[in-house]
Amino acid sequence: MIRTRADIARTALDVLTTEGSDALTHAHVADAAGYSKTTLYSYWPSRLDLAAAALDILADMPQYERTGDLRTDLVGQLTTFRQAVVDHRLDRVLAAMAQWATVEAMSQLREKINSQGQRLIRAILAEAFDGPELEAAISMVSGVVACPALMFGTVPDDDVIKAAVDIVVTSAVLKSAG
Amino acid sequence: MIRTRADIARTALDVLTTEGSDALTHAHVADAAGYSKTTLYSYWPSRLDLAAAALDILADMPQYERTGDLRTDLVGQLTTFRQAVVDHRLDRVLAAMAQWATVEAMSQLREKINSQGQRLIRAILAEAFDGPELEAAISMVSGVVACPALMFGTVPDDDVIKAAVDIVVTSAVLKSAG
Repeated sequence: MIRTRADIARTALDVLTTEGSDALTHAHVADAAGYSKTTLYSYWPSRLDLAAAALDILADMPQYERTGDLRTDLVGQLTTFRQAVVDHRLDRVLAAMAQWATVEAMSQLREKINSQGQRLIRAILAEAFDGPELEAAISMVSGVVACPALMFGTVPDDDVIKAAVDIVVTSAVLKSAG
Repeated sequence: MIRTRADIARTALDVLTTEGSDALTHAHVADAAGYSKTTLYSYWPSRLDLAAAALDILADMPQYERTGDLRTDLVGQLTTFRQAVVDHRLDRVLAAMAQWATVEAMSQLREKINSQGQRLIRAILAEAFDGPELEAAISMVSGVVACPALMFGTVPDDDVIKAAVDIVVTSAVLKSAG
C-alpha cells in the first residue's frame, strides 16, 4: 500500500512536469499509473491532495552537503539546483505552482515547498548577509538557475554559475572587511 | 475593428492573469469580452494566436528611461519591473508561458516575449559586464523581482532592490578598477 501510494505519487509528478498542470487529474493519473480512479480518490480526495503527494517527492531529492566555505557551497548548491531542473523539471513544477496560486490552499502548499527548496541557500547566505541584503542575495542566487529555466527553458553553464557566485562572494568579502 | 481586436486582446490578457492559462479559450474569452466566438476565431484561428495577441499588449507597457548611471538605471528598471508584476501580474504571465513550453510554437513565443522583456536590463548591464558575468548579472537582477513573485507571490521592498543593486554595482566597480 505504501508502494502503491509512492507509485502513483511518482506518476503524478511525471504527469505534472511532462504534460503540465491541466493534465494532473485523478482520471489521467490513474490511467497513467495503472490504478483505478477509486484507489486514487481513496488516498487523495481532492486535486490539491494529489498535487501535494506529487510535490512531496521533491522533499526526498538529494541535498548538497555543505563544507562551510561560502564560494564552494554556493557553487555546489547551484549545481545541485541546476541538476534538479534538468532531472526533475523543477522549472515546470514552479510554473505549475505559480499558476495554481489563485487558489488559497495551493498558495500555501507552494509557499511550503518553495521555502523548503530555498532553506539551504538561505542558510549558506545567512553566514555572510542579513536583512535586506540577505533577501536580495537569496533571490539573486536562486535567479541564476530559475530565471533562464523559467524564461527560456535553459540552464546556466558552469562559467555563469561561477561568475554569479563571484559577484555575491565579492560583496560578502567587502562587507566583512567593513 | 482595431478597437475590437484591442478589446478582446486586453480581455484575453486579463483572463490569463486572473484565471490562469486553462481559462484562455476562445469560448471563455468571447464570453468575457462580449463578442462572438466567430469573431475571435476570425482574428485568431488558434489558441496560440489568441495567446500571442494577449501577450502583444505587454510590448506596449511603459518603459523605464535610462539616465546612463548604472546604479540609478538598475534601481529604476527593477522598480518598473516590480510595478509591472503588481499591475499586470507578469509573474502569472511568465508561469503560464513556462507551462505552455512543451508546445514548440509556444516555446518560441515565450522566448520572443522574454527576450524583449530583458532587453533593457541587458543593455544597462552590458555597459559594465560581458561574457558569463553579463549572463549571470542579468539572471541575478531579474531574479530579485521574478523569484519572490513566482515562488511566493510577493514583490521585494525598496530596501531589497537597493541591496541587490549594491551587490551588482560593487562588483562592476571592482571589475573596472582592475
